[in-house]
Amino acid sequence: MPHIDFKNDLPGIRSAMSYSPETAKPLNMLAEILLRSEDGLTRTERELIATYVSYLNDCFYCNNSHGEIVCIYNGDHELVNQVRKDYRTAPISDKLKALLNIAAKVQQSGKAVTADDIKTARNSEATDKDIHDTVLIAAAFCMFNRYVDGLATNTPTDMDSYPIRAKQIVENGYGTHIYTTKQPVL
Amino acid sequence: MPHIDFKNDLPGIRSAMSYSPETAKPLNMLAEILLRSEDGLTRTERELIATYVSYLNDCFYCNNSHGEIVCIYNGDHELVNQVRKDYRTAPISDKLKALLNIAAKVQQSGKAVTADDIKTARNSEATDKDIHDTVLIAAAFCMFNRYVDGLATNTPTDMDSYPIRAKQIVENGYGTHIYTTKQPVL
Repeated sequence: MPHIDFKNDLPGIRSAMSYSPETAKPLNMLAEILLRSEDGLTRTERELIATYVSYLNDCFYCNNSHGEIVCIYNGDHELVNQVRKDYRTAPISDKLKALLNIAAKVQQSGKAVTADDIKTARNSEATDKDIHDTVLIAAAFCMFNRYVDGLATNTPTDMDSYPIRAKQIVENGYGTHIYTTKQPVL
Repeated sequence: MPHIDFKNDLPGIRSAMSYSPETAKPLNMLAEILLRSEDGLTRTERELIATYVSYLNDCFYCNNSHGEIVCIYNGDHELVNQVRKDYRTAPISDKLKALLNIAAKVQQSGKAVTADDIKTARNSEATDKDIHDTVLIAAAFCMFNRYVDGLATNTPTDMDSYPIRAKQIVENGYGTHIYTTKQPVL
């Protein structure tokens, strides 16, 4: 049961965003830029970083919500499951492995990221912007995950609901239309 | 030395925000709403929660930046230092003590917040909105702290710079003007 009365029955972060539309607006803006920009990292890479950090934070709702988006981009569940299990042996680029290593450090603490972690990423052709975006995606999901679980939002156990929602986000984004309607879609 | 070339010499989060103005916009909007709203929690209470979470995350820049803002609101350094040392014995309301307990749980993990923590806050007259805002402020500073330290932004060691910056934020806010000029002020 949620820790507060959201006055709605929406799942996960959507219940909190509907309860507080004024904070939902910048939260959705941030998700839209970080996860759907096509400047540098691909959308699949961005959602994989978000999924992996949510997995490390044991946030069932975000882990499955964003994992399903990766599945749509990538075609099946194999890749995201391999990254969750051990990204080091997953069929991804050395650059993405180095960035997932940085994301995992950020999940622990910003101070855990070392100059060697950055050097390894650069040696795999990660740019300053790739590193910046990775750190901020990981940091942002340390916020989103805590927002979802710190208020004990309702987590759908019907796994069929996640792909439906993922398809809506892939098609429409993280609610840019809310800037006028106040209706969050994350 | 910062992990990436920000192309500016600004301190702390301001260097990252100047490097990435498109993400600075929602980040500053979020800070403005969460820390300067006067609906429910006071500005002093909001900044104290932000300072305490930054202290727990060992983020020197955010801990001192927001601590100095509390000092302006409160008149001296005594209160913020007492909260850092042990909020349970600080001269603050039982409600704020219960909310700082929730914030400290969120700093660890969203899942660490228990029904008993919420009950204690309610028994001290915390509203649903107070609890919502506390969880989101704590979660947001788990992001801001990781953004600042995960990129190894420059941290001013000249402690005289913090009160000057704090005064600017108290007077002007967290950069609502950036929505047109792209100049972050956090």
